[in-house]
Amino acid sequence: MFIGAQVSLYPMTSDFVPVILTGLEALAPYRDRLRIETDDISTLMVGAPEPLFAAMRDLFARSAQGGTHVALHATLSRGCPGEPDDPSCRCDVLAVAQGAPLAQRQAEARAAVATAPLTGVQIDMQFSLYVLGQDRHMDEIYGCIAFLRDSGTFLKSKNFCTRLRGDAGAVFETVRQAFLRFGPAEGHVTIDLTASANSPSAR
Amino acid sequence: MFIGAQVSLYPMTSDFVPVILTGLEALAPYRDRLRIETDDISTLMVGAPEPLFAAMRDLFARSAQGGTHVALHATLSRGCPGEPDDPSCRCDVLAVAQGAPLAQRQAEARAAVATAPLTGVQIDMQFSLYVLGQDRHMDEIYGCIAFLRDSGTFLKSKNFCTRLRGDAGAVFETVRQAFLRFGPAEGHVTIDLTASANSPSAR
Repeated sequence: MFIGAQVSLYPMTSDFVPVILTGLEALAPYRDRLRIETDDISTLMVGAPEPLFAAMRDLFARSAQGGTHVALHATLSRGCPGEPDDPSCRCDVLAVAQGAPLAQRQAEARAAVATAPLTGVQIDMQFSLYVLGQDRHMDEIYGCIAFLRDSGTFLKSKNFCTRLRGDAGAVFETVRQAFLRFGPAEGHVTIDLTASANSPSAR
Repeated sequence: MFIGAQVSLYPMTSDFVPVILTGLEALAPYRDRLRIETDDISTLMVGAPEPLFAAMRDLFARSAQGGTHVALHATLSRGCPGEPDDPSCRCDVLAVAQGAPLAQRQAEARAAVATAPLTGVQIDMQFSLYVLGQDRHMDEIYGCIAFLRDSGTFLKSKNFCTRLRGDAGAVFETVRQAFLRFGPAEGHVTIDLTASANSPSAR
């Protein structure tokens, strides 16, 4: 299994470099469990879903705490047939999370969001879940959307994506649950995610 | 058929609003052919691939011309079974573009990139193509990657995505060709795209 993300952070300020560097400090606790490589467009993070989503959450929440309008984009992937197997991505929870009927998976996902630790940082997010390599891909996507509507972080449906709002802790946990519990355990699943905080348009 | 994108523009400057407004001026010639709706996270553009990609290209090139570090993210989709049919998205070229063997489609895609109009604005881009709802999705993705390597805009492969570089005209045409010529004509195909210009990291 290969699990990871290409993550980009966009601070809408002329002084964007310090905001990015402050955000990157939040990654320190995860560097022993994630492979992290940065170029001029994005930062690659490879590893299991637990530290992966926690790292993205902390990167974004820390960057947003100063009040700057910041956005984050992530391209997430698990099980891509074109990527090599990586022991650091070992994820027993994936098989456990999916060895259950849809209704049970939805209930477990809701419970995980309800008990997610809070950060005190309110964010907006929209994301798309893609289940690749199987004929009935929309069944899992519709099942995931049904979970999202009851997740406590649902704001509205949009074309091509679902809009969430809430504490960064609950919102990133919602996406982690979508990533883990929908689509086959050994399948190829991707997420296209955009987060936003402190937007003047949203006020 | 329903074709469109959720597009976000990120100027890395405290004076981000004028940069966004200048970029949006570039959409004027396309407003009669695209449905355009903006909220605080993204702008929805719905319509056929010809105006859709031209509008994204001009939005980004115009925003970058002032020299500000700007990034753009787009979530593109065609043929999503969950979206209503929309006559404005009618796209005869899609069936024509795909009624040919892979080698011919690759050659036609390369020719389209080679003759794309140039904008004079150099950009970087990375994107992922997702072919949903069929068992052998990687065949079309690998076929697309082979085209990208010979497209003239290829920079390098990265985990989960392909990196392009060049004039905004050639780069956006490369992605348009990927979107049109790979994956079934009536299938569900999505693209997750990030563009960047004037990055201090890239200098």
